[in-house]
Amino acid sequence: MPTFTRFETHDVRFPTSKHLDGSDAMNPDPDYSAAYLIIGTDAEDGLEGHGFAFTIGRGNDVQVAAIQALAGHILGQDVDTVLADMGTTWRLFVDDSQLRWLGPEKGVMNMAISAVVNALWDLKAKRAGLPLWDLLAGLTPEQLVDLVDFRYLTDALTRDEALDILRKAEPGRAARRAELIEKGFPAYTTTPGWLGYADEKLVRLAKEAVQQGYTQIKLKVGGNVEDDVRRMRLAREAVGPDIRIATDANQRWDVADAIEWVKALTPYDPWWIEEPTSPDDVLGHAAIRKGVSPVKVATGEHVQNRIVFKQLLQAGALDVLQIDAARVAGVNENIAILLLAAKFDIPVCPHAGGVGLCELVQHLSMFDFVAVAGTTKDRVIEYVEHLHEHFLEPVLISRGNYVAPQQPGFSAQMVPATLEQFAFPGGAEWLEVPA
Amino acid sequence: MPTFTRFETHDVRFPTSKHLDGSDAMNPDPDYSAAYLIIGTDAEDGLEGHGFAFTIGRGNDVQVAAIQALAGHILGQDVDTVLADMGTTWRLFVDDSQLRWLGPEKGVMNMAISAVVNALWDLKAKRAGLPLWDLLAGLTPEQLVDLVDFRYLTDALTRDEALDILRKAEPGRAARRAELIEKGFPAYTTTPGWLGYADEKLVRLAKEAVQQGYTQIKLKVGGNVEDDVRRMRLAREAVGPDIRIATDANQRWDVADAIEWVKALTPYDPWWIEEPTSPDDVLGHAAIRKGVSPVKVATGEHVQNRIVFKQLLQAGALDVLQIDAARVAGVNENIAILLLAAKFDIPVCPHAGGVGLCELVQHLSMFDFVAVAGTTKDRVIEYVEHLHEHFLEPVLISRGNYVAPQQPGFSAQMVPATLEQFAFPGGAEWLEVPA
Repeated sequence: MPTFTRFETHDVRFPTSKHLDGSDAMNPDPDYSAAYLIIGTDAEDGLEGHGFAFTIGRGNDVQVAAIQALAGHILGQDVDTVLADMGTTWRLFVDDSQLRWLGPEKGVMNMAISAVVNALWDLKAKRAGLPLWDLLAGLTPEQLVDLVDFRYLTDALTRDEALDILRKAEPGRAARRAELIEKGFPAYTTTPGWLGYADEKLVRLAKEAVQQGYTQIKLKVGGNVEDDVRRMRLAREAVGPDIRIATDANQRWDVADAIEWVKALTPYDPWWIEEPTSPDDVLGHAAIRKGVSPVKVATGEHVQNRIVFKQLLQAGALDVLQIDAARVAGVNENIAILLLAAKFDIPVCPHAGGVGLCELVQHLSMFDFVAVAGTTKDRVIEYVEHLHEHFLEPVLISRGNYVAPQQPGFSAQMVPATLEQFAFPGGAEWLEVPA
Repeated sequence: MPTFTRFETHDVRFPTSKHLDGSDAMNPDPDYSAAYLIIGTDAEDGLEGHGFAFTIGRGNDVQVAAIQALAGHILGQDVDTVLADMGTTWRLFVDDSQLRWLGPEKGVMNMAISAVVNALWDLKAKRAGLPLWDLLAGLTPEQLVDLVDFRYLTDALTRDEALDILRKAEPGRAARRAELIEKGFPAYTTTPGWLGYADEKLVRLAKEAVQQGYTQIKLKVGGNVEDDVRRMRLAREAVGPDIRIATDANQRWDVADAIEWVKALTPYDPWWIEEPTSPDDVLGHAAIRKGVSPVKVATGEHVQNRIVFKQLLQAGALDVLQIDAARVAGVNENIAILLLAAKFDIPVCPHAGGVGLCELVQHLSMFDFVAVAGTTKDRVIEYVEHLHEHFLEPVLISRGNYVAPQQPGFSAQMVPATLEQFAFPGGAEWLEVPA
């Protein structure tokens, strides 16, 4: 009976602030970082589970400490037992009553749980010899709802309703799996639209995106309204009328500001406004949605857990729901959120980018397509062209689509040299950067 | 010009799980703990600022790491400048864009900011030679609103509205200050009602509470409905019809469960039901309030920030708002919350207990009485009889009232021996406890 013998964390940081990649109205100088975890066992297969939380620099050490606080629930435990019942395993972390006080179910501790839960799913998928999306999409409806904690959800979604949703999607699974492998899953690109980029760079990258086959791009907004109107106009001129242009304010506004600002952009036909205000403000998003229609409201990358997503849906505050693979408590909580979105018939368009978020979240959208929502209509996964070279199995984009991963696991594994070179503060890359 | 020279953290834990003090439906075995901070300067006065985040055991080390992540904003800075403009100082921590990613404004990082901001207020009050409540209650309305960040609040409370509230309360300040010093501020006690206590202990402690002059007690509920009905009946028989009995479910229920359970207790006239469900569930609280009326709904000890409090008020989800001195981002954010409560005319009855939370929060209620709400009607501060002996200036209760502190500062300072004896894991107290 193999047991868990290794729980190894790494503070990995990339000095991205040097180039203003990833710059937006709230995050002027991020250093994209991962609080990275390797879980090992004494099994003969030698397989490891890899997972991480994404941060943007300072505080990545706090995130590592939070992941370490969960080691006691895993080390020395029986591998088969832990992986066989991932619903119970999830509750082990979330229901630790002492650690729960540090949230509950939010912020640093929830992101830490995400790293551990996702690493365990990576290991489980590797042991099954399947990419994670395919492993999940092969589970029965009963097995899937057993992964979900319905606590605090039952006023919007019960276990029986979730079962119904999954059962209705069951007959079409095989055909959609084949379609996914053939065509991939639609992507959109944020690469042209970072706030720190000059107009010329924006226009050039927007045109390139269209040539590459993307049907949607995204612009960061929220710094200065005149600049935003100009950049939006330039982008619209560059891509023409048929390409969707999403906009993203990264939580910059209060309710009234958001409505006014989006109205100034509306002549250039923005597809959605993303994170117009605080991710905690359910009622604020509902008011903004009313005020900016027909521009859609999107949010979710900073939404802390299924309970807030539930309310965003109950309040009619969203047109587009954006999951993040590493902020809520991992795969299990994201399955709950996908089921909530399906119940309320709201499309899920994941947040990605950062470090490895594209690699992770593609699996969740592909599972959603095959086994939950059953469609890619109005669904796109964010794609950002940064840092993929640090992963063993980087995402593959073809003509504006994510290609379905075929390797076993969660595509979460970084190349070993990166863990050394970008280690903070001792790695070679940081020794060269003046503090 | 003195500068900050010392930023010293301590992991302090009390093995309270040995006696089931503090046991409730969600927290069966807490070890009350403080992630404790001492801020020092090179000024000749030798004064220090003390602050802490409260946790219940595991993860207190993560909380300490989060506090340490803020040291860079303080060490080496000019003391007079930092303390002179506490509004700007607060934003220094909250608007650190890289650390903000770890929340934003919630969980471990927000509690860390609370420790640092509260320690700075402790130092500022000591330098002024005033207890914190009196320092705050002596600031002008303009100075007070300058302490508040109205971001994400303006759809419910603007700076001008906040000024109006404070100006209206200004003429009565002197009289209320005198009244406060003479009579103190009403308390209620949770000491009788912990879930782990036997019926006999509950009855005995409830009777003692009435004899001691309390007009309200509190019972933990949410373990088992038959047990709760019996305990509620025993408590009601013990205290008679005129003493208020609050109940507290510590987030145990979904919406429908909460309504059903509270209805079972209603024959024994509970005054409020506290934390019936997830602290994140604004709409859930609103539905529960509708379902359990006339029993009042109270929440707040785990509410993460002013943005969620804003929505609880906007949604009509609360009858009683419970601030906590060390969960939101310190004094400044609590002033914002007191102003929101005043705007919506909802009484504030703080959560306390734990380690040092009574010591801290009394200052905020007393400030609220003198300078904001202007009344103690239906206002009570929680009192729990644990661990006060570890503080240099423990709270003083007289005939069911908190006595207004007279010593300069925030009453936050622990006795030095405690920091040593209860240090985790190396302190004498922990060396005796089997792991």
